[in-house]
Amino acid sequence: MQIDGLAPLEEAAKGQLSFFANSRYKRAFQATQASAVLVGESTGSQNNGRKNGVTLVKVQNPQLAFARLSQLFYPPPAHVAGISPEALVHAEAMVHSTATVMAGAVVARGATVGARAVLHPGSHVGERALIGEDTVLHPNAVVYDRCVVGARCTLHASSVVGADGFGFVLDPEKLEHVKIPQAGIARLEDDVELGACSCVDRATLGETVIGRGTKIDNLVQIAHNVRIGPLSIVCAQAGISGSTQLGHGVVLGGQVGIAGHLEIGDLVKMAAQSGVAQDVEAGTTVGGTPAIEAGNWKRSSVVYAQLPELLKELRDLKRRVAQLEKGKKP
Amino acid sequence: MQIDGLAPLEEAAKGQLSFFANSRYKRAFQATQASAVLVGESTGSQNNGRKNGVTLVKVQNPQLAFARLSQLFYPPPAHVAGISPEALVHAEAMVHSTATVMAGAVVARGATVGARAVLHPGSHVGERALIGEDTVLHPNAVVYDRCVVGARCTLHASSVVGADGFGFVLDPEKLEHVKIPQAGIARLEDDVELGACSCVDRATLGETVIGRGTKIDNLVQIAHNVRIGPLSIVCAQAGISGSTQLGHGVVLGGQVGIAGHLEIGDLVKMAAQSGVAQDVEAGTTVGGTPAIEAGNWKRSSVVYAQLPELLKELRDLKRRVAQLEKGKKP
Amino acid sequence: MQIDGLAPLEEAAKGQLSFFANSRYKRAFQATQASAVLVGESTGSQNNGRKNGVTLVKVQNPQLAFARLSQLFYPPPAHVAGISPEALVHAEAMVHSTATVMAGAVVARGATVGARAVLHPGSHVGERALIGEDTVLHPNAVVYDRCVVGARCTLHASSVVGADGFGFVLDPEKLEHVKIPQAGIARLEDDVELGACSCVDRATLGETVIGRGTKIDNLVQIAHNVRIGPLSIVCAQAGISGSTQLGHGVVLGGQVGIAGHLEIGDLVKMAAQSGVAQDVEAGTTVGGTPAIEAGNWKRSSVVYAQLPELLKELRDLKRRVAQLEKGKKP
Repeated sequence: MQIDGLAPLEEAAKGQLSFFANSRYKRAFQATQASAVLVGESTGSQNNGRKNGVTLVKVQNPQLAFARLSQLFYPPPAHVAGISPEALVHAEAMVHSTATVMAGAVVARGATVGARAVLHPGSHVGERALIGEDTVLHPNAVVYDRCVVGARCTLHASSVVGADGFGFVLDPEKLEHVKIPQAGIARLEDDVELGACSCVDRATLGETVIGRGTKIDNLVQIAHNVRIGPLSIVCAQAGISGSTQLGHGVVLGGQVGIAGHLEIGDLVKMAAQSGVAQDVEAGTTVGGTPAIEAGNWKRSSVVYAQLPELLKELRDLKRRVAQLEKGKKP
Repeated sequence: MQIDGLAPLEEAAKGQLSFFANSRYKRAFQATQASAVLVGESTGSQNNGRKNGVTLVKVQNPQLAFARLSQLFYPPPAHVAGISPEALVHAEAMVHSTATVMAGAVVARGATVGARAVLHPGSHVGERALIGEDTVLHPNAVVYDRCVVGARCTLHASSVVGADGFGFVLDPEKLEHVKIPQAGIARLEDDVELGACSCVDRATLGETVIGRGTKIDNLVQIAHNVRIGPLSIVCAQAGISGSTQLGHGVVLGGQVGIAGHLEIGDLVKMAAQSGVAQDVEAGTTVGGTPAIEAGNWKRSSVVYAQLPELLKELRDLKRRVAQLEKGKKP
Repeated sequence: MQIDGLAPLEEAAKGQLSFFANSRYKRAFQATQASAVLVGESTGSQNNGRKNGVTLVKVQNPQLAFARLSQLFYPPPAHVAGISPEALVHAEAMVHSTATVMAGAVVARGATVGARAVLHPGSHVGERALIGEDTVLHPNAVVYDRCVVGARCTLHASSVVGADGFGFVLDPEKLEHVKIPQAGIARLEDDVELGACSCVDRATLGETVIGRGTKIDNLVQIAHNVRIGPLSIVCAQAGISGSTQLGHGVVLGGQVGIAGHLEIGDLVKMAAQSGVAQDVEAGTTVGGTPAIEAGNWKRSSVVYAQLPELLKELRDLKRRVAQLEKGKKP
């Protein structure tokens, strides 16, 4: 049997390989037309690894195996090295000879672009900024001056690294918001992915840091002086306010908001749309606004839906107690 | 009487036409300086369609009539066909002779741009991408490689079609998030509008699809493998997680979040900021986080505001019941 | 003593100046290595303005003093005036001789760019748009046709001024959403800052207005015909729906959402993630979704976390009251 493609269980055809990692998709697994399916070691199969004509390939972590196989089937596109004559590269920029700078990409004075880096059209590397080896800037991604992007990073279209942090002080006499210069930088460590239209602001002083291997989805806001530890996951439209620090392996659901100047411990998880206003201890899962421990939040949200009923019961009880009190006195 | 312009009720001057469709604006209607007002058929008028000197034009749907009239008064700008000498069009791209490709716009190898399409400066059509007839890409809008945009679509500035879906699997031994290649595409069917800085991610495998005539506001996130039916409305800053399917005519309020792998039925409505974590049946309106039926949510939210009071009442009742119990025993 | 740099309390080294404005940072203040610290007039110091070897500089408003000092230490970068030969400036555009138009920046026909304005690469000034004196458009910032940006404004990367407002009317017979042309403009008054990937939509008719000195963070959505008064603060990912009016000095926390057609009074404050569905009176602070007075919201949120407990108590009470009622009857 030759496998010539990968597909999800429901869409896989003959000759394709799929994976089954979540019992939620049991029906799709049983109905799949795939020729082979990566399954966990505990998945039962009587017939020498075959089930309904599907070859089952037992692996420790089917999803991980699928991801690695998928990387073989769908390698990143190759790019011809060199600077396009229509690229806008400053004479005093340093671009590695194996890097690709496409038409319309900008590399400003004093910037450095590492080996095999790829700058798509409209992407922007500001003055004295550093782009690491094998890093890709998709179209119109922007890295402001002096900011640092590590190796093997991916910046998706229209993402922005190093815009000014949001810092103003009201002058009550002149009636103006006085800008606090944002003189620091933003630094993405190695293997960071930054989604489309996501923003990592530069620090007021010092650095805003995204830790090694952290992955950030689209439309995310990372404010000035935030520090995110390695291997964290930030889902779409989440926002982290200034100076907040996250440990490693933290997972933020979509549209989560975190207030400023907080400490979020290692491996903390936040349910989508949580609003976090206090420090969170390592290993905790929280939810809701203001966020509380997730189990508590779930139980409270069940009662929330019953509140009108609960109010009615309370009022009824009040009436009955008043009756009892009346009955007692005479 | 000649009408030479359109304006909202409060701003309309003599010679201008306005519309009155919502009783909420009755005061503005009564005070308007407009020469003519489109009104619904049930709007009362004694004087042969005139009221305080204003000509009332009765139509079935004043807002719709206003929209159509407005299209006559404010036609889209005309553009000279042709490829600017300063556009960055690959030799192997196919641009229709009636299309407009402005200075600084990018059309990559193998891409196709349809008749009368308009590519503003800085917009980007990736390799082998397809742009349909009469579609407009505003400045810095990006369509990644192989993605498909139908006819008569509008992509506003800095919108992104086809960035990678957010898919990683943690390798617990190597301690890295392994990227699942996002080898599918994003497809916008005909007559779709995509707001500024909105993102439609490409599918992991297969397609992310925005149905015919669906309109998407600014800063919206559509994750990989989502499918939105035709004629839906997605307000600003809403987000839909991976693989979720929406029916036709669905309306999402601003900042709504929907979890992944859900089914949202036809004509479902979601109140602004809802957080939807479960399937929603066709025709339902939901609100809140986690979202519940909208009427229930409204009633619960009223009680929510009374919770401190309610707690006090409960404590008081408890005390009184304890008193009663004491009184009973002796 | 010579001061040669500024730094936060924890990071400051010898020779650097810091500030201490919030008692929350008392520990950092006591441990700082800074040579001098700006402090409020009420900060105690026995030793002639010195404390642990640190020179204390008493000022009325330490944060404001720090901001002004910081502007001296970190002045904005100087740019060489003139139009880059690689800029895309239309022959019929008017660019002031002291303005800087960098390579890849676009100035369309009939647009005007004021004195000392700076247009970074990929930024876009649409037809007949106006850019005021000393205003900076960072890379890939877009100003649509006819829109107006005042003096001393800053538009960060990928921000968008003047994209179409989101206005459609469903034609129930043709089954299409008919677009209401967005024929108005967006106007930013003087001294406005607009964050990266933030959007200010143009008005349907008339103007969307951001008042003088108002500061807007990243990823913010301002819908058509919104009017924000002067000196307001809009934090990241907040969104304001169409035609809503804000007074002066309004402060929106992150991820706040405001419904359309509302009036928000002067100096109103909204807690992060608030969802505001009704008018808000001047001077009020609100929180929650739907938003209520902030103190009430805080108290209610405390009870919310106790809801499961409260439900249990209520049920217990019900049982006890039923017992009492039984006991009474015989």
